[in-house]
Amino acid sequence: MADKRSYHMTPDEFRRHGRAVVDWIADYYERIENFPVVSRAKPGEIRGSLPSSAPEHGESFESMLQDVEKLILPGVTHWQSPNFYAYFPSNNSFPSMLGELLSAGLGVQGMLWATSPACTELETHVLDWLVGMLGLPDAFRSTSTGGGVIQDTASSASLCALLAGRERATKLASNERGCDGHLVAYTSSQAHSSIEKAVKIAGIGRENLRLVEVDRDFAMRPDALDAAIRQDLAASRLPCFVCATVGTTSSNALDPVRAIGEICRRHGIWLHVDAAMSGTAALCPEFRHIQDGLDLADSYAFNPHKWMFTNFDSNCFYVRDRKALIDTLSVLPEYLRNRATESGAVIDYRDWHIPLGRRFRALKLWFVIRHYGVEGLRFHVRRHVELAQGFARWIRDESRFELAAPAPLNLVCFRHYRGDAANQRIMDRLNSSGDLYLTHTRLDGRLTLRLCVGQWQTELRHVELARQRIGEEAAALEHVA
Amino acid sequence: MADKRSYHMTPDEFRRHGRAVVDWIADYYERIENFPVVSRAKPGEIRGSLPSSAPEHGESFESMLQDVEKLILPGVTHWQSPNFYAYFPSNNSFPSMLGELLSAGLGVQGMLWATSPACTELETHVLDWLVGMLGLPDAFRSTSTGGGVIQDTASSASLCALLAGRERATKLASNERGCDGHLVAYTSSQAHSSIEKAVKIAGIGRENLRLVEVDRDFAMRPDALDAAIRQDLAASRLPCFVCATVGTTSSNALDPVRAIGEICRRHGIWLHVDAAMSGTAALCPEFRHIQDGLDLADSYAFNPHKWMFTNFDSNCFYVRDRKALIDTLSVLPEYLRNRATESGAVIDYRDWHIPLGRRFRALKLWFVIRHYGVEGLRFHVRRHVELAQGFARWIRDESRFELAAPAPLNLVCFRHYRGDAANQRIMDRLNSSGDLYLTHTRLDGRLTLRLCVGQWQTELRHVELARQRIGEEAAALEHVA
Repeated sequence: MADKRSYHMTPDEFRRHGRAVVDWIADYYERIENFPVVSRAKPGEIRGSLPSSAPEHGESFESMLQDVEKLILPGVTHWQSPNFYAYFPSNNSFPSMLGELLSAGLGVQGMLWATSPACTELETHVLDWLVGMLGLPDAFRSTSTGGGVIQDTASSASLCALLAGRERATKLASNERGCDGHLVAYTSSQAHSSIEKAVKIAGIGRENLRLVEVDRDFAMRPDALDAAIRQDLAASRLPCFVCATVGTTSSNALDPVRAIGEICRRHGIWLHVDAAMSGTAALCPEFRHIQDGLDLADSYAFNPHKWMFTNFDSNCFYVRDRKALIDTLSVLPEYLRNRATESGAVIDYRDWHIPLGRRFRALKLWFVIRHYGVEGLRFHVRRHVELAQGFARWIRDESRFELAAPAPLNLVCFRHYRGDAANQRIMDRLNSSGDLYLTHTRLDGRLTLRLCVGQWQTELRHVELARQRIGEEAAALEHVA
Repeated sequence: MADKRSYHMTPDEFRRHGRAVVDWIADYYERIENFPVVSRAKPGEIRGSLPSSAPEHGESFESMLQDVEKLILPGVTHWQSPNFYAYFPSNNSFPSMLGELLSAGLGVQGMLWATSPACTELETHVLDWLVGMLGLPDAFRSTSTGGGVIQDTASSASLCALLAGRERATKLASNERGCDGHLVAYTSSQAHSSIEKAVKIAGIGRENLRLVEVDRDFAMRPDALDAAIRQDLAASRLPCFVCATVGTTSSNALDPVRAIGEICRRHGIWLHVDAAMSGTAALCPEFRHIQDGLDLADSYAFNPHKWMFTNFDSNCFYVRDRKALIDTLSVLPEYLRNRATESGAVIDYRDWHIPLGRRFRALKLWFVIRHYGVEGLRFHVRRHVELAQGFARWIRDESRFELAAPAPLNLVCFRHYRGDAANQRIMDRLNSSGDLYLTHTRLDGRLTLRLCVGQWQTELRHVELARQRIGEEAAALEHVA
């Protein structure tokens, strides 16, 4: 029990309970394949097991950890299971967890350089490391005109990019005066829903987001983008933002960044490149072609919390011109003034995103990069791509299935020849079996299954199990009318 | 070293390194008073100690933890020191750290109910608990028309509230069409900078934020608010949002929520109440008067990560009408469709904030509440208020100092009679001594020192040390020309 005088857990109790939690997590990963990947909880079931009001008196930590096992775990869908292939991964690693724990332990606020210099400097430093690791444009380095920052998610990064683009476009037109209803933004019809959300948030309005047509591979058509921009300009509208996607959520389509970038440069429009999952592939030189043309982009984001073994949240957002971003988001009240800020010699990350407060997220990224080394990270990216490509070959060879889109990296989109109901049935049966977890999308109007290989512990045997189970469910379909 | 075949840290290595990190944190708290509270690092010093590029090969965890001690710690400002009185606190506790660790270990995404039911249901449940614990309006319960959600910060919560207010006001005027340049928002001249930031983000424009005059206690004047709204209406502008503050960052001023709420109701304007730090005081019935009138608010936020022993980030955001919030932020792409969402029986928190992805933050809040019990949390709030009130009495009795604002709770604003330079000198000398950390504000145009008691391990002896050191620096001033 806690210190009687203060109710606090003592340091020695923390040592003991901390070990118990570390062991619980280690045990969890040793038995993770025993759980059904998708939780079988019914709506309200978890809540129903909890007391209706908060306890008046403190409880033992042991009882809390027991409740995690007994009440919470049945309601968990195991995102870290090696049999998880749904959505995009949100992967993880032991070094990352330890970085998160240290960050929680130190409990510093990194809103200003002055409020904890190491929090800002390690972040700037590791984000500069990543420029080299991924072969990103030098302008994204903090030692150049740009720089990187850790945001929570790609949604927030896209919003910040849109705002910077909006401000750049309206500087002469309506500075400080709010939107004027003539701004227009562009992304492909396959882009992430966060772009639509960002456009709503920024007051540009959903009607003023153009969903540009895609080609047969679901990548944005530059000619269609150019035509849309010209049409808006002719109608006296103000194009302010283009978002290209390197690896769409739906099918991993790769928008042609160079061609899009040239159009944006010609019209002076802010280009943001969203590479939330696939950006990590650029660790390997042989995959860097996916970001060809990135030197023409104004901003870029990818999520180490998707495919680079860093637990959520960790989005890396880069800009070519940090002044444009800071001017967009900076507000400086008296209570945050300090000498370091006024010297101009430091970065204050509060001006680089929506929130003011921020935690020491660079620690976990630093731990992951140092633990694996660049070679270890490359090893896993290559292995995941190889496993996905092996699965794609099987689909190509399987007469009952077809590939629904190119599979350039680690996501495979496929469907059974018998149409939507059959594919829905296959997916539902696989997911409710507990053996694996797949999700779907819709391509060319047809229900399509997605298998994304990116979980940190996924091995060949797991993908072979997936193949076998998909084959079995397809075979079972033969007996269904 | 890591598993040779996979580069992963093995579960057994994680057990060992995890213990080392837990012990490091326990040790850190046992020696935290030995460090200067404010880091003495110079700009660039931390970066200068790090290798210029990422390691090609993995390194040992031992070397990483040694670097935390040797390279990072000197760049840390000790927010968790009991001698930290700056800004608002960002406090912490051992049970909270363990909740954060478990959340990192499970690594689930709670964007949809379906992606991990326990993540959503525990959050909804604990936020309903807090309605009871704090005496909030019943409409904020998920079982009524409203509900609560964990956001990262009060800045993000204010932005979401503003967006919901903007959508409500423009529903008939410009639905889906973006801002029309006639929207107006209101807050007091003492409100947090995040409101100005939110107004910029939302495309309303800084010019259209009215900073309403305050009374002698720095609280918003309802008559001035009413006059400003009437003036805007007369000019055919569209008032959409009012933010009242319960405990301003500058001086802990308490806006009169009931009077403001009545004005908002009369004009049909969304009222958000920002109680980022002070909201926690409502755990104690004797302090609940600060939120009188909250039944008239449309939304409300407070931060357990400030004063309720929950490590950053943890902001609790409540709305009276969840449909208004969801309609504002919802976008539903095919790849997120699922049966549970379509049944309408579940909450999908992705529609309650800016990001899509979200981690299992309810775990740490659940651990904190269960560990301390409501009585333990109340004990600390009362103790902090008592310590701050004792300090305020000393200031009142000290002829060299004066209180610069009322000190209703745990923040004391004070200044030396000799003016700005003297106060700046006192603050600089205190902070550079390493003994404690204070920050400043400006009230009535004069530099004012702030002492906020809210760190979890702050005891009477720490506040007595602060008193003594402030007295010494004031005495030293006597010898300065």
